[in-house]
Amino acid sequence: MPKLLNDDARAQALHGLPEWALASDSKSIAREFKFKDFVEAFGFMTQVAIRAQVMDHHPDWSNGYNRVSITLSTHDAGGLTDNDIALAQQIDAIVA
Amino acid sequence: MPKLLNDDARAQALHGLPEWALASDSKSIAREFKFKDFVEAFGFMTQVAIRAQVMDHHPDWSNGYNRVSITLSTHDAGGLTDNDIALAQQIDAIVA
Repeated sequence: MPKLLNDDARAQALHGLPEWALASDSKSIAREFKFKDFVEAFGFMTQVAIRAQVMDHHPDWSNGYNRVSITLSTHDAGGLTDNDIALAQQIDAIVA
Repeated sequence: MPKLLNDDARAQALHGLPEWALASDSKSIAREFKFKDFVEAFGFMTQVAIRAQVMDHHPDWSNGYNRVSITLSTHDAGGLTDNDIALAQQIDAIVA
């Protein structure tokens, strides 16, 4: 199982993910996305889905028309791990 | 704009959609789905996405690993219309 990030490691990792918001309990990070329309939003989700499956680490996410909301946490570990940071980086790369 | 369903029309339509739960405000219907794994869940979502785009009527939905939660409402009309019923029927057909 991946190890929970300690406070220092989490702070350092989030420094490189300025668009992601840390939850008040520090157990997850979240980011909102807005696209032109549904096709663009779901196209983005499809790219994320394939990356997530390759990593075997999956997002909790929601979509309504052109908006996508993503929350990342490692449920088995009870909080943030390197897996969440890696997936967030991949997601940022997709929309970059 | 599609017309809001009146009480009789809504009741009749929902009779054919026994898996869908009517919200307490009667403005939306929702159904939960559980699949074998993420690939199966996202494959289902992809089928729904394509159908929704063809209908130009889109769900509000969320996914976490093998679970998908879908809520249908016609926001422009402020509640349930024939579009929601039609999309729910298409979704039921996908999982049938």
